[in-house]
Amino acid sequence: MKHSLGARTLLFPTPVLMVGTYDRAGKPNLMNAAWGGICCSQPPCVAVSLRKATYSHACILERKAFTVGIACESRMVEADYVGIASGRDVDKFATTGLTPVGSELVDAPYAAEFPVVLECRLLHVVEIGLHTQFIGEIIDVKADSDVLDTDGLPDIGKIKPLVFDTAHKGYHGIGPLLGKAFTVGKGLVP
Amino acid sequence: MKHSLGARTLLFPTPVLMVGTYDRAGKPNLMNAAWGGICCSQPPCVAVSLRKATYSHACILERKAFTVGIACESRMVEADYVGIASGRDVDKFATTGLTPVGSELVDAPYAAEFPVVLECRLLHVVEIGLHTQFIGEIIDVKADSDVLDTDGLPDIGKIKPLVFDTAHKGYHGIGPLLGKAFTVGKGLVP
Repeated sequence: MKHSLGARTLLFPTPVLMVGTYDRAGKPNLMNAAWGGICCSQPPCVAVSLRKATYSHACILERKAFTVGIACESRMVEADYVGIASGRDVDKFATTGLTPVGSELVDAPYAAEFPVVLECRLLHVVEIGLHTQFIGEIIDVKADSDVLDTDGLPDIGKIKPLVFDTAHKGYHGIGPLLGKAFTVGKGLVP
Repeated sequence: MKHSLGARTLLFPTPVLMVGTYDRAGKPNLMNAAWGGICCSQPPCVAVSLRKATYSHACILERKAFTVGIACESRMVEADYVGIASGRDVDKFATTGLTPVGSELVDAPYAAEFPVVLECRLLHVVEIGLHTQFIGEIIDVKADSDVLDTDGLPDIGKIKPLVFDTAHKGYHGIGPLLGKAFTVGKGLVP
């Protein structure tokens, strides 16, 4: 018997995404978004949802581009800060000491210190309600060499991405590998 | 200096969502979706992306509803299986022994064994490419009493949700609490 908790945004896990944009004047900005995820394999796309009140909202519409950095354990303080301050009031790169790098593929910056970044071209804008969903086509993924495995792909254990807990607003780490997808369930195939 | 990995669906973390639907004949079905996330706070909405080829795709369009269960460690085998088999060929509830429960709020079922479930009414359909994104308004969230904290909210440490690793296709657990959001970054506010 399950208990009703009401109409709430409870989902487990959600990511901690560092959304990078330029404003009209060319100032780089970074914000923290937990409302997002991959939304298509071909073309590869990622969705992030932002409130209209955020500074980044207008920046994405203006530049038709954004980046998505993966927040990691070693940069939890900076990741949280960019979700508290507004680019309208401060230069968050200056305050945090994070290094803005201009993407050569899309009209948006990213912070060098986050180990994995997705460079995205704005593909769709979906007005839902308080949040606008921006669907970006992933033009390239870039990663630091020290988070890559011998197969050339990022190792989640080296990235140490943050997980956001929608219920108690905590940041968690990633736990151990429990099993391989498309494999552990095969025993149930008749 | 970051290395280019190409245009790929790499994001960390992604969830393991159990999407519940009825087909035209009323047979309950369950599938595994890692492409999804919360996409709006008001109205509370969740997005899941499914390929047109999946059996669940037509079911959502037909019934204008779906549920999203949170896959958990103790049900990893069943969660993986429903991502391998198709409801076109088998009754996945029968094969797994999972218990279908009909939502009283939306025209979709869920599996009783997953500790948290979101009951959703279809709000938007976004054709992106290989995947169609279904945005559902969360009408209610239901949870088992044994995953609730003293404040009545789900405890991520009791849910033990699965995390999908998009690079190496593994299922991971959740790691320890590292800090509180909207708090740990306050020290950087000037």
